[in-house]
Amino acid sequence: MTTIDARPTHTVEVGYDEFCGALAAHDLKALWSMQTQLMPEVPIPSTRPWLWRWDTIFPLARRAGEIVTIERGGDRRVLALANPGLGGLPYTSSTLWGAIQYLGPGEAAPAHRHTPSAIRFVLVGSGVYTTVNGDACDMEPGDLVLTPYWNWHDHNHHGSEPMVWFDGLDLPLVATLESIFFENHRDRVQEVLGRNLSEGLYTGVGLVDPSLPSPDEHSPLLRYRWSETEKALESLAAARGGPMVSVEYRNPVTGGPVVLTFTCEMSRIFPGARTPSIRRTGSTIYVVLHGRGRSVVDGIQLDWGPGDIFVSPSWAAVDHEADEQADVFMISDRPVLQSFRLYREETLPEAQVVDEVFSPR
Amino acid sequence: MTTIDARPTHTVEVGYDEFCGALAAHDLKALWSMQTQLMPEVPIPSTRPWLWRWDTIFPLARRAGEIVTIERGGDRRVLALANPGLGGLPYTSSTLWGAIQYLGPGEAAPAHRHTPSAIRFVLVGSGVYTTVNGDACDMEPGDLVLTPYWNWHDHNHHGSEPMVWFDGLDLPLVATLESIFFENHRDRVQEVLGRNLSEGLYTGVGLVDPSLPSPDEHSPLLRYRWSETEKALESLAAARGGPMVSVEYRNPVTGGPVVLTFTCEMSRIFPGARTPSIRRTGSTIYVVLHGRGRSVVDGIQLDWGPGDIFVSPSWAAVDHEADEQADVFMISDRPVLQSFRLYREETLPEAQVVDEVFSPR
Amino acid sequence: MTTIDARPTHTVEVGYDEFCGALAAHDLKALWSMQTQLMPEVPIPSTRPWLWRWDTIFPLARRAGEIVTIERGGDRRVLALANPGLGGLPYTSSTLWGAIQYLGPGEAAPAHRHTPSAIRFVLVGSGVYTTVNGDACDMEPGDLVLTPYWNWHDHNHHGSEPMVWFDGLDLPLVATLESIFFENHRDRVQEVLGRNLSEGLYTGVGLVDPSLPSPDEHSPLLRYRWSETEKALESLAAARGGPMVSVEYRNPVTGGPVVLTFTCEMSRIFPGARTPSIRRTGSTIYVVLHGRGRSVVDGIQLDWGPGDIFVSPSWAAVDHEADEQADVFMISDRPVLQSFRLYREETLPEAQVVDEVFSPR
Amino acid sequence: MTTIDARPTHTVEVGYDEFCGALAAHDLKALWSMQTQLMPEVPIPSTRPWLWRWDTIFPLARRAGEIVTIERGGDRRVLALANPGLGGLPYTSSTLWGAIQYLGPGEAAPAHRHTPSAIRFVLVGSGVYTTVNGDACDMEPGDLVLTPYWNWHDHNHHGSEPMVWFDGLDLPLVATLESIFFENHRDRVQEVLGRNLSEGLYTGVGLVDPSLPSPDEHSPLLRYRWSETEKALESLAAARGGPMVSVEYRNPVTGGPVVLTFTCEMSRIFPGARTPSIRRTGSTIYVVLHGRGRSVVDGIQLDWGPGDIFVSPSWAAVDHEADEQADVFMISDRPVLQSFRLYREETLPEAQVVDEVFSPR
Repeated sequence: MTTIDARPTHTVEVGYDEFCGALAAHDLKALWSMQTQLMPEVPIPSTRPWLWRWDTIFPLARRAGEIVTIERGGDRRVLALANPGLGGLPYTSSTLWGAIQYLGPGEAAPAHRHTPSAIRFVLVGSGVYTTVNGDACDMEPGDLVLTPYWNWHDHNHHGSEPMVWFDGLDLPLVATLESIFFENHRDRVQEVLGRNLSEGLYTGVGLVDPSLPSPDEHSPLLRYRWSETEKALESLAAARGGPMVSVEYRNPVTGGPVVLTFTCEMSRIFPGARTPSIRRTGSTIYVVLHGRGRSVVDGIQLDWGPGDIFVSPSWAAVDHEADEQADVFMISDRPVLQSFRLYREETLPEAQVVDEVFSPR
Repeated sequence: MTTIDARPTHTVEVGYDEFCGALAAHDLKALWSMQTQLMPEVPIPSTRPWLWRWDTIFPLARRAGEIVTIERGGDRRVLALANPGLGGLPYTSSTLWGAIQYLGPGEAAPAHRHTPSAIRFVLVGSGVYTTVNGDACDMEPGDLVLTPYWNWHDHNHHGSEPMVWFDGLDLPLVATLESIFFENHRDRVQEVLGRNLSEGLYTGVGLVDPSLPSPDEHSPLLRYRWSETEKALESLAAARGGPMVSVEYRNPVTGGPVVLTFTCEMSRIFPGARTPSIRRTGSTIYVVLHGRGRSVVDGIQLDWGPGDIFVSPSWAAVDHEADEQADVFMISDRPVLQSFRLYREETLPEAQVVDEVFSPR
Repeated sequence: MTTIDARPTHTVEVGYDEFCGALAAHDLKALWSMQTQLMPEVPIPSTRPWLWRWDTIFPLARRAGEIVTIERGGDRRVLALANPGLGGLPYTSSTLWGAIQYLGPGEAAPAHRHTPSAIRFVLVGSGVYTTVNGDACDMEPGDLVLTPYWNWHDHNHHGSEPMVWFDGLDLPLVATLESIFFENHRDRVQEVLGRNLSEGLYTGVGLVDPSLPSPDEHSPLLRYRWSETEKALESLAAARGGPMVSVEYRNPVTGGPVVLTFTCEMSRIFPGARTPSIRRTGSTIYVVLHGRGRSVVDGIQLDWGPGDIFVSPSWAAVDHEADEQADVFMISDRPVLQSFRLYREETLPEAQVVDEVFSPR
Repeated sequence: MTTIDARPTHTVEVGYDEFCGALAAHDLKALWSMQTQLMPEVPIPSTRPWLWRWDTIFPLARRAGEIVTIERGGDRRVLALANPGLGGLPYTSSTLWGAIQYLGPGEAAPAHRHTPSAIRFVLVGSGVYTTVNGDACDMEPGDLVLTPYWNWHDHNHHGSEPMVWFDGLDLPLVATLESIFFENHRDRVQEVLGRNLSEGLYTGVGLVDPSLPSPDEHSPLLRYRWSETEKALESLAAARGGPMVSVEYRNPVTGGPVVLTFTCEMSRIFPGARTPSIRRTGSTIYVVLHGRGRSVVDGIQLDWGPGDIFVSPSWAAVDHEADEQADVFMISDRPVLQSFRLYREETLPEAQVVDEVFSPR
């Protein structure tokens, strides 16, 4: 059995520059020349704190509605929020995809499925239902609708006004994992087996039909209605107080996140106080549903109002302050960080200083 | 409470080209123009099948030993295997770092720790011990030594001949997760509390001191000695037969992978038959310890011998055939894929055709 | 080191009868003489199918209210349902304790805690709250209130009419495990920190405050209000149909049972059809809240009405039929069986025959 | 829908004695009269500290070998160690069955399976193999062989001297759970597929063939050979020191106990020091393989030598002291206690006082 020979037939007698050239020629890189960039003391994210204004994205989405049709191959009328730190990739953070989807009356986004998991958070409009494996889920502003990993889904508009929602996906992560699979449904629109079926099966807190399966890939509850979310926020605010209360949307059967790769939360922020500045590993996209205020992300102040979307990178210090009562939806890759014990959290001893006020393009 | 206004003050009246320009100006991207690239039917990896020859990398590593010293800031004399598909990044696949580390007699690579987890697989030489949180682990050819997540570690050479080992890390994944933390030990070399301590605590199959903690972050057994691995391969080969047998290195207390983010395996391949062609999601780096043979990766034939290192991307069809009995070490990101139910595996009905014989630079 | 000597100094030369006597004298028993009783082909439970009538137990409970005071040492005015198959033990099945607790206006059952977990299911009355670690949980008919493992609890009656509820405990199991610990609170009645606190924290399906701890010992939601349970049953009945729908009360954070050792469920049974006959390992206690009907348990027909309580042993065939719409609460040791892979379930091909109509004493 | 009527038709007007009689007549028991026995401050086990001498049980087992044949219906020549605290039940503790099994040359104990899990720990003799689902496991003194839950098994003696081993089962627990199923194999002796097969598949610490299934019901390694156990004890003693070292036998794939309901351990006790006195919930049976010494169990001193077997109840203070180096095998229901968070452990501040020296019958 041949073993490794530590006395190879030739030797290399070159100076440092030629040596580096030889490395490059043989697809090698010297660690010592880049050690501190590769292994910084704390994370140096590529993702940049950024904000997209509703007043900018909505008119463009509406224009897209006028000039772009929805067809197989394109499949969706979606504007991705491309973080300028990511070198031209259409990603909002290194792991998360955030986008605006626009669907006009009478339109249907065709049925397909893919390994990246998606959530839809409705911003404006009504009359759309998203069918997920046969379950037609109605979508109203503030609702969260899941189209998880490998579930067939299509969006159908039977209303009279355009509808706009936020799309959140783990697409960048699944792309890094080189595991994207995609399949078109044989029909343009899948058959509807019933309306809001999953809502009918999960209607009480901690009350589960034991004869139903216990899926651990994603929540079997596919629609989280805004009125329920708001009721929970109100109750929490009464019970706990403070400048901000949050609920995390969970799989009601396992208690896990709605999809395995990212978590969804809704926070209600009350005016009058700034929340503590906290650093967390993992990135977060924020979608403002109601209210006005500002967040400071690593010293950059982001002023926001309804429909604005912004992102905070990993390990950025983040705090929030509302000018009026605000509801902010968030998605975060925290479950991934936690899976690998990479999650860290640190509350700063005092409020961070604002170095700069963000001015979006 | 201000809500989202679906009747913004201005409208956009531009043609398609200007519209695209407006998108770019506002950090937006149109999904429909890139849908099929973003969501291909099967994974289209950036990682390319590639092979680095021992006869190329060892002379360069030896030359590095002559002209590069090991100092704080550089810390390690490491040549990273940079996959040419990854746009210049020093990564072997989209999630895994593979490299060759070279340490000369009398040298010490200084003590530090970092959130990426590392394993060391010894290729040639002896006389080195790696201290991991005080436990000095001897390193002999074929040994696997762990320096997991956030464990202090340094490498110390008390022998007479240079030593070379393979470094495997999850650094690309942790970089994508923007969660790299790094810290230098206050001492250049940490204090040694004992020699091969973890080996003394885990010495029987399925026999565990119940008073020891049950860490689930990584294996508490830090050194997997080649003689034990070989014995297990021999026993498995006798019990199961076939052209290839494999053992996976595991946490002896939890049964999990040695570190949470990648798995380590050793395969013994026997001459006389080609293994089935299998596609799996996730990438794998292969390090040849003994023997000669060839692997076919998505139609590209990679011929290999002792010390050669090669990589297969996600969803590539892979099979192996030995010319003489061969031992091949592997690391793979499969645990990550499995965590998120993204792992798929498919055995091809027949052996794949060779389209091309790889010729390394 | 002394080893076992297979040549002992003396020999035994006795006939079979004397041999059996020698065994008994030395605390030994011959397996061969009892093998088939010890290891029957299918379970032969000691627990017997049995029913206690409301018309019997309520007058006795009321009489107890007149002649028995609640004091330290007795602590609770509780009548245990003692299964006649269990040799005089005050247990309803081999693993479960079922009982009726009676509390008069102005009375308080003093604060204590114990390792057995308890649930309270309210039958009649109002005006009582049970304080669990400071959280005063109001109790109304049909409500489920938890006083789990090692939580301080006391019951306080501020109403005007006597209250009666069902107590369910895992006391027989914890007794078999020889692990009962008990402690009196230093105060007769513990301090109340707030009213229905846990209800205020868990108010939406799949909506959880992520900053709260995730206890996996028992549900953090301590009160399950009947109005919510009924709403869930109605919704399920609309969605699924059939002669019976069930909800299991769950820990809303983990999806596990409300306590680790038994599960609580509520079934609504509709008149017009008999449910399939099903055998399951594990025993179940049934408490009728509303309606009339009958259940057949291993061929014995048990006729029931509001307030009646009955029990089915392990592996008994069980089916139900309502004469009018009925709501039946149940507790079962199924989680224990499942923990050890001892849970089995089998639906009989056809309805079981009634051999006998049960006539309670 | 009929609801519970709190105004029943009749009232009870009896004195306390008649009241108690009425309770008994209706299968009810008053909690207040037995509260302190049912809920003691600390466990009051029925299981008593007890010891069976090898010099007593071996001659009886040998005599059984002479006068009792092994046939269907009896199936095994087993003498159960019946704890005198358990009211005549053939159990060694409230959850564990301990027994001595005797098999003569040429005999075979017929093939069957049952839901209780069993382990065999060999005391004297050789030439027997136990076939477990086709895998013929050789048995030598000090070996542990598993015949877990619902696995077919038979014992076959091809040697020349009688063999005696200890049987440990969870039978009392499974009896309490009313879940015993039993089935005879269609053949008296099942077909042998190979010899020590499981040993050949699990031969390195933390080295697992990833293509094998990962059973979580019980360990797939069915034989733990004494030579391996002893090697592990020696290594641990060298690494850790102290008067006692222990290894727990584990499922090498999951890290769990060898069967779900009890754990098996081997301790080596060194002369010269008494171990700390520790209380633990759960009962333990101890089987002395080598050496002499004594254990104190709740103040009762049990002197032991090779082949002796003794038991400690839940929450008993236990310590050990060897006169000469001793090896003691143990089984304990600790995994059950841990499953339900009922496990507690407490080290006494100082060595317990000996109140009594146990004198076995």
